[in-house]
Amino acid sequence: MDRIPILQMGDLLLVTIQVDMHDQLALTLQDDLTDKIQRTSARGVLIDISALDIVDSFIGRMISTISALARIMDATTVVVGMQPAVAITLVELGLDLRGVRTALNVERGMKLLQLPAGDP
Amino acid sequence: MDRIPILQMGDLLLVTIQVDMHDQLALTLQDDLTDKIQRTSARGVLIDISALDIVDSFIGRMISTISALARIMDATTVVVGMQPAVAITLVELGLDLRGVRTALNVERGMKLLQLPAGDP
Repeated sequence: MDRIPILQMGDLLLVTIQVDMHDQLALTLQDDLTDKIQRTSARGVLIDISALDIVDSFIGRMISTISALARIMDATTVVVGMQPAVAITLVELGLDLRGVRTALNVERGMKLLQLPAGDP
Repeated sequence: MDRIPILQMGDLLLVTIQVDMHDQLALTLQDDLTDKIQRTSARGVLIDISALDIVDSFIGRMISTISALARIMDATTVVVGMQPAVAITLVELGLDLRGVRTALNVERGMKLLQLPAGDP
């Protein structure tokens, strides 16, 4: 497992995080994603984390970084499928994912991205 | 990693295979998928295998089983994102995925599932 697949659906990109992230995997994902946003002119990035039971500050920072990268490439990032325990951990870690939009599931995330962009 | 997430998009379900499958994971996926097809009345199942560099007969059989399960629940399975090397291996293994539809990527798979069902 050396890279996380990025699926294109219209002008959205979907990333499903299923495995433990490590430095190299996170860097590769950032590279692949910025590359794909440019090639596909994607307007939105959905990051599904429903498979994650736990998160740490590394994952939290990675999501923030991806969101910031996407934003300066004019794409909006929505994190979907967060489990309740993960939400609790993120807040306890002091990672409030400022500027990152969230939705309960992929469908709601897709709906969110079809709306005109406003402030999160 | 004890289960593979199944994402719902309208009346389609999307499964992204990223990790090495083992017996228990495959069984859990079959259970989860049949359960989700029933609960969501899904008409199509997309299995993305773009992250897989290699496949063995175990994965090949799992895909065939999932497809057969979905079919008797009135859902069509499309395998998407197969890498060239994987296609070669499958044919060399004698696994021609009979009855399983394939598409080059998720978008084409979604388009295929929106067409009226015909024979693969």
